[in-house]
Amino acid sequence: MSAVTYELIHECRQSGARYGRVRTEHGSFETPAFMPVGTQATVKAMTPDELQEIDAKIILGNTYHLWMRPGMEVIAAAGGLHSFMNWQGPILTDSGGFQVFSLARPKDISEEGVSFSSHIDGSRHFLTPELSIGIQKTLGSDIMMQLDECTPWPASYDYAKNSLERTTRWLERAIDVWDHPEKQALFGIVQGGMYADLRQQSAREITSFDLPGFGVGGLSVGEPLETMLEMLDVIKDIMPREKPRYLMGVGTPVYMVESVLRGIDMFDCVYPTRVGRNGTAITSKGRVVIRNAVYAKDFSPIDPDCNCYVCKNYTRAYLRHLIKANEILGMRLLSWHNLYYLIDLMKQAREAIQADKYLDFVKEFYYKGGFVVNSSK
Amino acid sequence: MSAVTYELIHECRQSGARYGRVRTEHGSFETPAFMPVGTQATVKAMTPDELQEIDAKIILGNTYHLWMRPGMEVIAAAGGLHSFMNWQGPILTDSGGFQVFSLARPKDISEEGVSFSSHIDGSRHFLTPELSIGIQKTLGSDIMMQLDECTPWPASYDYAKNSLERTTRWLERAIDVWDHPEKQALFGIVQGGMYADLRQQSAREITSFDLPGFGVGGLSVGEPLETMLEMLDVIKDIMPREKPRYLMGVGTPVYMVESVLRGIDMFDCVYPTRVGRNGTAITSKGRVVIRNAVYAKDFSPIDPDCNCYVCKNYTRAYLRHLIKANEILGMRLLSWHNLYYLIDLMKQAREAIQADKYLDFVKEFYYKGGFVVNSSK
Repeated sequence: MSAVTYELIHECRQSGARYGRVRTEHGSFETPAFMPVGTQATVKAMTPDELQEIDAKIILGNTYHLWMRPGMEVIAAAGGLHSFMNWQGPILTDSGGFQVFSLARPKDISEEGVSFSSHIDGSRHFLTPELSIGIQKTLGSDIMMQLDECTPWPASYDYAKNSLERTTRWLERAIDVWDHPEKQALFGIVQGGMYADLRQQSAREITSFDLPGFGVGGLSVGEPLETMLEMLDVIKDIMPREKPRYLMGVGTPVYMVESVLRGIDMFDCVYPTRVGRNGTAITSKGRVVIRNAVYAKDFSPIDPDCNCYVCKNYTRAYLRHLIKANEILGMRLLSWHNLYYLIDLMKQAREAIQADKYLDFVKEFYYKGGFVVNSSK
Repeated sequence: MSAVTYELIHECRQSGARYGRVRTEHGSFETPAFMPVGTQATVKAMTPDELQEIDAKIILGNTYHLWMRPGMEVIAAAGGLHSFMNWQGPILTDSGGFQVFSLARPKDISEEGVSFSSHIDGSRHFLTPELSIGIQKTLGSDIMMQLDECTPWPASYDYAKNSLERTTRWLERAIDVWDHPEKQALFGIVQGGMYADLRQQSAREITSFDLPGFGVGGLSVGEPLETMLEMLDVIKDIMPREKPRYLMGVGTPVYMVESVLRGIDMFDCVYPTRVGRNGTAITSKGRVVIRNAVYAKDFSPIDPDCNCYVCKNYTRAYLRHLIKANEILGMRLLSWHNLYYLIDLMKQAREAIQADKYLDFVKEFYYKGGFVVNSSK
């Protein structure tokens, strides 16, 4: 029995977009879904109760950050990450690779693993596919991600090919030490840079393993939106229909709406909380930079179409004041609204898919937001 | 009809401590009470809903900060401070004097008022007793404080005498422009430095005006606790029994518990939120410096005797991690607990007063906290 199962409930007849449900031991969630990121055992500025209130069903934890601080001894003593941070729902953890690769020098990456210096105290560490699984086992996440080699952009064809093939070998090593599939799921990760044939090679290799789900990594790393969407298009028919597909690190409205059209089920990004803390609100009409002087005496909500706690109780003028005065409450309220907006956007997407109207939904989304319609569909 | 009325309900037969109720247009609250400080139109890190949840009945606003930012044009357009910050309960505003005096140079203080430079943009301003009332009128607070000259410590006898006498003259000027006693209450402020006869002179002068309540200012400014308590002792019988007494800027547990014994009804202090953001918890057993290594694997609550949301849901180990990782949630949760503790401490004090057991309560408080019993009673 797998710790995580996926049920494809409906494919939109208008668009092919997928509506489904993922079940875990800590609860189930419908897809497509946005997953808030809880880097350091907290979704920044939010309590677990508030995450429940905005209908966040699953959150992320960052293996690298938790490994470095508070460290696995503390997490193990707490009985895992769920208990440590008092979050009862499902948790997905990344492999730690993304952060480690950004800290490592090129010569530190070998077939065996990656060596790097901690950003906190400079201490040296060595991350391997096996160790990543070991750490995620201690974290006790419902979904673990394999250690992959995240290909930077731009990268040469040979570099991207070597990376994806190493990622496949690292997946084999991760599977070898994955001794508890009934407790924690393991997802493999499709790489391949921005080369269509390499993406397809990677998708074929990675999905040849019978895993409960798959990630797509190395996208939204600086390339144009069209390039990213092309990479999703070329692997769409290779990815198994009956497994969930997680587009890693992507979570802006346009990118999510377009990716759902290409069969993606799960998203995560620090974007909503990061820009929220800096005073930017994400709305159905585009971004609202709340610290702008034009909002000084604007006593309307951030987004009149939004039903969140923030939009029902606070004005743009008040939020602008809080952000300009560097008040924690301002960062809290904008993080709250932004997370609500993205979670609710995916809820609306699920409803549109079920009603076989997802293409209409995409058009309406672009129209409301004042965007140029650039969907390739 | 006065905007604010006070009812002395019971005097503790064991100690003389007072239990009463203050009524305002925005609701009533029992005394003795701790009032959280909302300097910049927010009690730092807390929503109005959370303040309600911890039973905060009245909060403070700082006239100086709100005058400088967002400015009175914005507050007036919002319809006052209650509406601007979405707080429905009573609000007390200070005069702005305390902050202005700390920014002014000695030569900037005259009989007419105080000139100073804004800490935000350096612009020059001139605060008078009349202007302070005008600003507080725009803020729409339930209780306004007169502009006073806060005597520093130490100060010479002559300096303290001149300050208190000017404060009395400034009260007359404030009363002259207080044209709406049915909408907003005005409290005068007792000064007098650390000289018993000057404190008594000030108490007699200030309470000769028929005002709905009185503040005691210029205490807890660096002097020993015993000196402060002596200053309260010498004015205790001069202050009218049927009016509430507000000890300005005092809000640590020992200081509050001792001051209640000397007839004080209202307190405020930034202490709980300030030390909370820095990772210190206030508990019935004294202060807990949560970032200390000893708490790294301590999975007990901050205070096992505390019934607050934080103590019911989070461990010392988790809070330590959050504070060390500089996470907003850590600052939020410690602010929450600390405010709850002080508000609850005053609730327990009220119950002890009603039961005529306030001296027993003080002894128990010192015993639990491991303090040396230094009450002069």
